[in-house]
Amino acid sequence: MKRVVVIGGGTGNFAVLRGLKKFPLSLSAIVSMADDGGSTGILRDELGVLPPGDVRQCLVALSESSVLMRSLVNYRFENGGLGGHSFGNLFLSALEKVTGSFEKAVEEMGKILLIKGKVIPVTTHQVRLKMILNNRSVLEGEKEIYLSQEIDQGYHNIYLEPFPEANPHALEEIKNADYVILGPGGLHTSLIPNLLVEGVSDALLESKGKKIFAANLMNRKGQTTGFKLSDYLKELVKFIGDDIFDAILINNQSPPEELLDVYSEEGTLVENDLDDQRVIQAPLLGDLSEGHKKDLIKRNLIRHDPDKLATELMKIVGDL
Amino acid sequence: MKRVVVIGGGTGNFAVLRGLKKFPLSLSAIVSMADDGGSTGILRDELGVLPPGDVRQCLVALSESSVLMRSLVNYRFENGGLGGHSFGNLFLSALEKVTGSFEKAVEEMGKILLIKGKVIPVTTHQVRLKMILNNRSVLEGEKEIYLSQEIDQGYHNIYLEPFPEANPHALEEIKNADYVILGPGGLHTSLIPNLLVEGVSDALLESKGKKIFAANLMNRKGQTTGFKLSDYLKELVKFIGDDIFDAILINNQSPPEELLDVYSEEGTLVENDLDDQRVIQAPLLGDLSEGHKKDLIKRNLIRHDPDKLATELMKIVGDL
Repeated sequence: MKRVVVIGGGTGNFAVLRGLKKFPLSLSAIVSMADDGGSTGILRDELGVLPPGDVRQCLVALSESSVLMRSLVNYRFENGGLGGHSFGNLFLSALEKVTGSFEKAVEEMGKILLIKGKVIPVTTHQVRLKMILNNRSVLEGEKEIYLSQEIDQGYHNIYLEPFPEANPHALEEIKNADYVILGPGGLHTSLIPNLLVEGVSDALLESKGKKIFAANLMNRKGQTTGFKLSDYLKELVKFIGDDIFDAILINNQSPPEELLDVYSEEGTLVENDLDDQRVIQAPLLGDLSEGHKKDLIKRNLIRHDPDKLATELMKIVGDL
Repeated sequence: MKRVVVIGGGTGNFAVLRGLKKFPLSLSAIVSMADDGGSTGILRDELGVLPPGDVRQCLVALSESSVLMRSLVNYRFENGGLGGHSFGNLFLSALEKVTGSFEKAVEEMGKILLIKGKVIPVTTHQVRLKMILNNRSVLEGEKEIYLSQEIDQGYHNIYLEPFPEANPHALEEIKNADYVILGPGGLHTSLIPNLLVEGVSDALLESKGKKIFAANLMNRKGQTTGFKLSDYLKELVKFIGDDIFDAILINNQSPPEELLDVYSEEGTLVENDLDDQRVIQAPLLGDLSEGHKKDLIKRNLIRHDPDKLATELMKIVGDL
């Protein structure tokens, strides 16, 4: 089976993993450890655990257990001292405490959730993502960076503190991969934080595997305002050290005007501005039927369809 | 296989279930729903769930899953908003929220923990245990009753509010049992609360199964101060309506003097004062070696040995 490694974090990874799970692949998800918002942030602060949130989402995406188990893992308590905590986050944190190892916790939860593939934290060190803007203000933590509206004014530096060694299992997966898929995912909050870990870019440069960049659907206002595909590529190349990509997948489907209006305060569609044979354009949007609209929160309305995304990625994998 | 029903709640049940699990029996644990202390009490108040604590202990006792899974379920968070919560309690409460049913939650967690047998809440209604003392003060909740030092001055009434219907599955198990074991367990906080549920005493009276009372090792000062076996039996008969017991098992092993000294503030050994052929006396104490002493908190030092307890119970089952 082809070894496919998906690098990301956050909700971006979810669609790729969920879609690719249906194909006969040996799948590994490498996950950023920079998350510090919401339930995850509280658990980091109060219990000193590694961030469970992104890992949890990948585990659910790859899970072949019952709908009930997946609902349980995503369940959020609503009241009292537990309010806001996702049960899956508590599950990972308790497992980390009992086993004494976050990686072991992820492995055990993977077994319980009957996951197809592997979920691997990019590092097993406690890190904080920091960003120094051009105006010299410092953004402390992924959450602050995610919420900032000034990043599009330029930043001086982004780094993990302390500078962490990679999880050797993550490097091994990248080096032995037949295909590496980077993205989709928040550029500064999910993709780059993986590249900031010592050894990850080198592993990408060394790996004989084909590299695919799966671009985001939407820009994020104040962060990647007005970014075109070339801007994303430039940022990634800066951190990797070379343009390693063999293929670049981008959506070319327009959502209904009304939805773009709803989104206009948050950002615009990412467009292709590259005249490059590596770029593959395809309609990748999720179902926008009324039934779906009601169920989803605004920011998830324009999203990747896991099956479309995976089908296009599998075509690329076949062609490369 | 013989159908054996164990009625109790709290830690008392743990030893019986853990011991009997090793025998080829069809086991059911019927669990009191009156607990409202600690983590369980907070979850009841904040989330409006049914009390998970006692059920969790029974599930662990009957679990044939890995040591890791059992440690995980018993793990208690130490800090922050989660401090004091047992992970297993959160597991049951989240499952109750996701499935919309406590009984379903218990069933699902039983599957995950690979339990041998069944764990059945005695009622699926929200109840509070209340006690009116002879001095007319009212104790509200199991925790208050557990901590009271005045119960041995006599009480006027003990009841569940509101008066709950039994879980029909619990009544069915009792009626169809070949053997019903009541105890060990806190007299007012674990055993009687099961008998206060509508239909339970009638089911016991109707059941053709043999009834065994497994007596506690120790009295609890301020609660069952100076109680002998006959006092326990009298209390139970009062709530059941008849002396239904075919056998009564009581420990006759003395712990080392030094341990009794340590315990003297909490209570004394329960002694047999019945000249009754139904009474079986046997050494039932757990290992008191130094290694164990260090690991255990004081109140658990004098405890039942699950294997001794189960072996004696199986002898009774064979003889009846």
